[in-house]
Amino acid sequence: MKLLRYGPRGAEKPGLLDADGQIRDLSAVVSDLSGDVLCNLDQLGDLNTAELPVVDGNPRLGACVAGTGKFLCIGLNYADHAAESGMDVPSEPVLFMKATSAICGPNDPIIIPRGSVKTDWEVELGVVIGKSAKYVTEENALDHVAGYCVINDVSEREYQIERQGQWSKGKSCDNFGQIGPWLVTPDEVSDPQSLSMWLDVNGERVQDGSTKTMVYGVAHLVSYLSQFFTLHPGDVISTGTPPGVGLGFKPPRYLKAGDTVRLGIEGLGEQSQVCENDA
Amino acid sequence: MKLLRYGPRGAEKPGLLDADGQIRDLSAVVSDLSGDVLCNLDQLGDLNTAELPVVDGNPRLGACVAGTGKFLCIGLNYADHAAESGMDVPSEPVLFMKATSAICGPNDPIIIPRGSVKTDWEVELGVVIGKSAKYVTEENALDHVAGYCVINDVSEREYQIERQGQWSKGKSCDNFGQIGPWLVTPDEVSDPQSLSMWLDVNGERVQDGSTKTMVYGVAHLVSYLSQFFTLHPGDVISTGTPPGVGLGFKPPRYLKAGDTVRLGIEGLGEQSQVCENDA
Repeated sequence: MKLLRYGPRGAEKPGLLDADGQIRDLSAVVSDLSGDVLCNLDQLGDLNTAELPVVDGNPRLGACVAGTGKFLCIGLNYADHAAESGMDVPSEPVLFMKATSAICGPNDPIIIPRGSVKTDWEVELGVVIGKSAKYVTEENALDHVAGYCVINDVSEREYQIERQGQWSKGKSCDNFGQIGPWLVTPDEVSDPQSLSMWLDVNGERVQDGSTKTMVYGVAHLVSYLSQFFTLHPGDVISTGTPPGVGLGFKPPRYLKAGDTVRLGIEGLGEQSQVCENDA
Repeated sequence: MKLLRYGPRGAEKPGLLDADGQIRDLSAVVSDLSGDVLCNLDQLGDLNTAELPVVDGNPRLGACVAGTGKFLCIGLNYADHAAESGMDVPSEPVLFMKATSAICGPNDPIIIPRGSVKTDWEVELGVVIGKSAKYVTEENALDHVAGYCVINDVSEREYQIERQGQWSKGKSCDNFGQIGPWLVTPDEVSDPQSLSMWLDVNGERVQDGSTKTMVYGVAHLVSYLSQFFTLHPGDVISTGTPPGVGLGFKPPRYLKAGDTVRLGIEGLGEQSQVCENDA
């Protein structure tokens, strides 16, 4: 299934994408794609999709998961990206957190904060937790995954690196976390470690990678993180980005108002964003 | 006012502490002490406290704020604590985030994660946001504060410092964020930069400080953080800890099962925790 949320920001309804690419309304079946629903997705197994109401028009899409408690991110998880950032591949996963208030829809604008000159892009495979996980083994880890999605881990490099310690400051600005378009359930993702991924800026391909070159794979990450704290349904893990971010160009390239960013992952759909300056 | 939440974990009700130290039930007046209520605390101004039902017995207290979206923490914000940690006072505030899933009641146990040998304490002044804040000036910053509280920023130093980059890993374990007992409204806190604070381990005073020696004060922090992202009602800022954490002892001292921790801040109440090993 390809689950999604559609409608105005803050008032999204749950839906799904049918085999013909139409949005079907799910709001009579589940309240929202939040943790309490994601932990019981089996209830949707018996749905007759053809009987669900078709949503007309071309509504805005929201983030494909609601009520996320933790927005966990893995740094330097592609060997080539670590190299372009001038950093070593870490001996175990590097964790940082983005503010959940950064989360927005897949096609919502990238908002460049006032005074920012180093706003950058990062296409990433997102993993959404479906069942609580604490001290789970790598072998059992994927049982705790509700699905996969595309994430743009938008990053302000000056705030992240030059403004005193810890990365959260440059990772948490409003609209710095486009999630979606769809939450794709694991039955449709035959191997999360073999998905091509790409990102274009103004039509030019800048990231062109595959989850094959991830240092720490999804099962390892879910197991690893669950050793430190409980992963709850609705939590999101953004698993790192392949080479080609603006910081890695010589000289570096950053986003400015009017730039367009498109990104996608094989089988998980595409995002499209226009950059704008904060009001 | 001293606002609080009481009852079993996950089913807390809102209440307040009256002048006689009794808990009064607020659940007929507000749904919970979450952002949508905190942004409109003026509605409580006309309450006749004496008419609210008295809560009998000695119920468990929950965190004094519900539905926190961001648990923002400031590192190295007391000059002496930076020195004991072997770090310089930062040239601007250091931000890191704790997982909101770490939040628990003020007297809930400190749970030592499996295999942890460096679980540590940090008494901190907590600031709870009451009105959304974006690009606010320092002059107007305190208008966005709903109240103040005690926080124990429990920290696992091996996870934080020795387990590959970024502090969140050692700051986000379950029950690593005791918040409360009360959310004390600003009218009862004449100067947030002049509050004594202390922490005892097994009856021995180990932290004995004052918010007077904070490097970046509350108004500066609210304004500063609001330059990076929107602060929403219910967000919590934990403003750093004075000297006396276990890491700073020579040799370092860490918590073990059975240890008791008590901590408090002038006018904001006290917390009491017993340490236990994770199951």
